Amino acid sequence: MAEKIPDDAAHLLEGQHFAHVATLMEDGSPQVTPVWIGREGDLVTFNTAKGRLKEKNLKRDPRVAISIVDAENPYIPLVIKGKVVEMTEEGADDDIDALAKRYLDEDSYPFRQPGEERIIVKIEPDKATYANG
Amino acid sequence: MAEKIPDDAAHLLEGQHFAHVATLMEDGSPQVTPVWIGREGDLVTFNTAKGRLKEKNLKRDPRVAISIVDAENPYIPLVIKGKVVEMTEEGADDDIDALAKRYLDEDSYPFRQPGEERIIVKIEPDKATYANG
Repeated sequence: MAEKIPDDAAHLLEGQHFAHVATLMEDGSPQVTPVWIGREGDLVTFNTAKGRLKEKNLKRDPRVAISIVDAENPYIPLVIKGKVVEMTEEGADDDIDALAKRYLDEDSYPFRQPGEERIIVKIEPDKATYANG
Repeated sequence: MAEKIPDDAAHLLEGQHFAHVATLMEDGSPQVTPVWIGREGDLVTFNTAKGRLKEKNLKRDPRVAISIVDAENPYIPLVIKGKVVEMTEEGADDDIDALAKRYLDEDSYPFRQPGEERIIVKIEPDKATYANG
């Protein structure tokens, strides 16, 4: 059952806050790393590169959890559980440049590696909690 | 195989940085929430309360992953994978007060709930990565 991101948490997907995305390793253990975060309508999105651990993990098991803290108000985290509904190269280069603009005020993503293929990961939230943790 | 936290990442366990701790739900899906973080020798520690989701999850499956970003230098995260080796009430009230002092400069933990029993969760890192993510 899809759940919307609470309106009063929307700024956490629009600012310069880091999201920490948890996925599942092949042995079922958790993995978690920081990412830049965005949204596309009711979907939550992040951008990664093909071949990264997160992409491999999410291809195998689409279940994901996300935790975001607002540095200005860290004791009300946004915590999301959901599943990946799409991983696509379409628009992914523009998307990472837009994220670089937002997070770094740079017109082009400065950490691009030679041969890297970017992908957008789109997540449908099953649960979104924005309350004292 | 236990792995030490890299010396140049030690400040991430000593400052006011939030750690995001991923555990496993009963159905194997990931859960992730922010916590205050500490250390005890080579073990990484955080403090939670009995009955919380994290405690229940870690009693069932001790595998855990932790991601920490330094606000001053967010593009070198500390990422830890490991397992819980101990969960104890012993010293947990003093520990949460010490964390409140460190994170909030308050002498006593201000978010304590009536009847709450605090516990220290101690994690042995199997892997600790401190490098561009």
